[in-house]
Amino acid sequence: MTFLDEGFQPFGGAIWLEDTFVYQSGVPHMSLPPLSHRAQKTPASPIRRLAGLAQAAEERGTKVYRLNIGQPDLLSPREFIDGIARYNEQVVAYETSQGNRALIEAWSESLNAQYGIGVSEQQMLITMGASEALIFTFMVCCDPGDEILIFDPTYANYIGFSAISGVRLVPLPCSIERKFPIPTRAEIERFISPYTRAILLCNPNNPTGTVATDEELRMLLDVCRERDLYLIVDETYREFVYDGRLPRCILELAGKDPRVVVIDSLSKRFSLCGARIGCMITWNEEVRKAAFHIAQARLAAPTIEQSAAAHMIRTVSSDYVASAHAEYLSRRNAAVDALSKISGVVTHAPEGGFYLLAKLPVVDAEDFAQFMLTDFSYQGATTFVAPAAGFYMRREDGLSTIRIAFVLKESDTREAIRILGEGLAAYNQGTGRR
Amino acid sequence: MTFLDEGFQPFGGAIWLEDTFVYQSGVPHMSLPPLSHRAQKTPASPIRRLAGLAQAAEERGTKVYRLNIGQPDLLSPREFIDGIARYNEQVVAYETSQGNRALIEAWSESLNAQYGIGVSEQQMLITMGASEALIFTFMVCCDPGDEILIFDPTYANYIGFSAISGVRLVPLPCSIERKFPIPTRAEIERFISPYTRAILLCNPNNPTGTVATDEELRMLLDVCRERDLYLIVDETYREFVYDGRLPRCILELAGKDPRVVVIDSLSKRFSLCGARIGCMITWNEEVRKAAFHIAQARLAAPTIEQSAAAHMIRTVSSDYVASAHAEYLSRRNAAVDALSKISGVVTHAPEGGFYLLAKLPVVDAEDFAQFMLTDFSYQGATTFVAPAAGFYMRREDGLSTIRIAFVLKESDTREAIRILGEGLAAYNQGTGRR
Repeated sequence: MTFLDEGFQPFGGAIWLEDTFVYQSGVPHMSLPPLSHRAQKTPASPIRRLAGLAQAAEERGTKVYRLNIGQPDLLSPREFIDGIARYNEQVVAYETSQGNRALIEAWSESLNAQYGIGVSEQQMLITMGASEALIFTFMVCCDPGDEILIFDPTYANYIGFSAISGVRLVPLPCSIERKFPIPTRAEIERFISPYTRAILLCNPNNPTGTVATDEELRMLLDVCRERDLYLIVDETYREFVYDGRLPRCILELAGKDPRVVVIDSLSKRFSLCGARIGCMITWNEEVRKAAFHIAQARLAAPTIEQSAAAHMIRTVSSDYVASAHAEYLSRRNAAVDALSKISGVVTHAPEGGFYLLAKLPVVDAEDFAQFMLTDFSYQGATTFVAPAAGFYMRREDGLSTIRIAFVLKESDTREAIRILGEGLAAYNQGTGRR
Repeated sequence: MTFLDEGFQPFGGAIWLEDTFVYQSGVPHMSLPPLSHRAQKTPASPIRRLAGLAQAAEERGTKVYRLNIGQPDLLSPREFIDGIARYNEQVVAYETSQGNRALIEAWSESLNAQYGIGVSEQQMLITMGASEALIFTFMVCCDPGDEILIFDPTYANYIGFSAISGVRLVPLPCSIERKFPIPTRAEIERFISPYTRAILLCNPNNPTGTVATDEELRMLLDVCRERDLYLIVDETYREFVYDGRLPRCILELAGKDPRVVVIDSLSKRFSLCGARIGCMITWNEEVRKAAFHIAQARLAAPTIEQSAAAHMIRTVSSDYVASAHAEYLSRRNAAVDALSKISGVVTHAPEGGFYLLAKLPVVDAEDFAQFMLTDFSYQGATTFVAPAAGFYMRREDGLSTIRIAFVLKESDTREAIRILGEGLAAYNQGTGRR
């Protein structure tokens, strides 16, 4: 099993990291066809380079606590593994482009049971993770040059999807000092242009942990209704809300509003990141037909995981998610408590998800994160955090900030953050590299 | 197990086929955000509508021989199913963005053993089928408005990929009467414009069955070298060549030429369409880095199928592909022989792949294909063929043509085509619907 941050780095960073372009001998020296502009604009993962450094630290014998990664360590449901074992077709045939029917039925039934939203097969399209659902949604709702409003910082891969699809993400700045609130209606309206097609909300938010209130969700819906915009809500972390908040699906408030597109995923809820099963849910028939045509072009999502997921959703106990929720809550509390003991750190308890952002008393958090991997260890161990600048459209707003994923068990989380504090002290006293 | 053409139609066409857009009650009647132009341009599958008719015919008790479908009925290798059973991780974690290392090693070693092309992990990126590899390649090599030359007719989904990526496919007409030859250098050069970025070749070809000779491949390479173009070669059907031809990988001729991008897939070779495992191979470091950045944005391809495929490639006997080859050859011969007995049909034995095109003595092959499903049966059976117009960029060139996939066992293929002949006679004598 590999623990790579969201699939970012290849082979621990060992293979594709060289930056030299030396064409092989034996090829005539003619000029080469150009790379597309969009390819040049598609960003590399913000943590790709550091992953290689973490591997090098481990090879030197340093224990590395990986708080950089969004890969849960919780065991996947036994029911999914059973579902894999139950797959017994002799021809691994294409699934339909819309997705495995049993999976769609089971998933929609479970959503209806929990949220009372009354969706059926007609509203759902199964995709290769939330990623593919988001790419389809960007392509269907926007042409190149169109704009989507996002709240900044944002999930780094939204920036990649925008480069692929030619969509311009327009960032509304949200500050860590104010605990990353959803912007007000007036703030949002100031950013709407004739090119705006949608507002994209990740709720609960990766990386900020902000969970929108019902009033905020209604305000976003109102703005979209008044200004003819799509409201795209990525609910990958829907169940992971804390402090008495209740999980909320936007469709509870939006009903059958055709402006709303929900992105969902089994990856985090069931610790099934590698199964790559997501979906797109919308009552907008034009949108889902257009997305379906794109889905036809790529034929189908993988057959076996869909079959196993259908079995899992039908049979897994609700205890699974409840227990994952309790685990993340205890890890969140441990992380926030440990961070509160380091002077100069600005952070707050995230309302949901399993990430938090923390502003450090450093000028360049990427340099500090690198220092932790290359020049520092404490009792044989160090801590790997993700510099957050790559999550900011306005990079300058995030230069001092790191993202922490609380995906390690409570005691490891505490120890990792204690080491982070020791590293900060060494870095700022110049006893480290600088 | 479902036998749906390349994942095209949802649920046998029963669910998403309605053409009415009636928004649900309870939603205020405001105007709606528009659908993107590219979504409107992404074509539906050329056979989607007919799939519903085939299902209806079966529900009336008619046996339907499905020659429309590109889903092999050959059993997947036992070694793949074993590979699934051997997967025993407790956390289904993200695979790396580049792909499962063991799979890349096994795949590159098998390519090197067979073709001596010396590729390693550095040249390969695992994708969700050849489809995703092609989408990545279009995006990396072309910006919206750029052009790719294709030989017309072409694989219908290339048209979908072009709509998604904003790339303009420029069709070079190839005629069935001349057996769909690769166009000459002069013909190709006439279509190259300042916007041309690549030539895309499917070799062996879906849907024409044409296999390029070494001279033709060298000519294409020369043109690309001289005019600074990429040469994209989709080798999904590489091993299925007949009549003494030998499987040929373009890299045998191109060496390490950075202009060449190879698209490969396990789907057809190993009857693993549903596993969705393809790859992109290129010596061009800029191209593969850019593709890798896009791959990072979608995180990773599914974990379990990749793990099983690695096991399969390491353990499967070469007899598997040899036996699939022999089976398709016998089906091809049966199909061509049976078609030769129907007067007025223009076709020829395809040199490779498992499709053929046949021009029928009808004005509108789609109308005829529909007639076969709605108004005709012969001793309780009928034949489902794909109208080929959707495979032609210049639709008017393909209005009388059908695509036949020889994916049924030899005796069924013969019977299905005999019924096709009976249907043609009825259709043209007006004893059918018209």
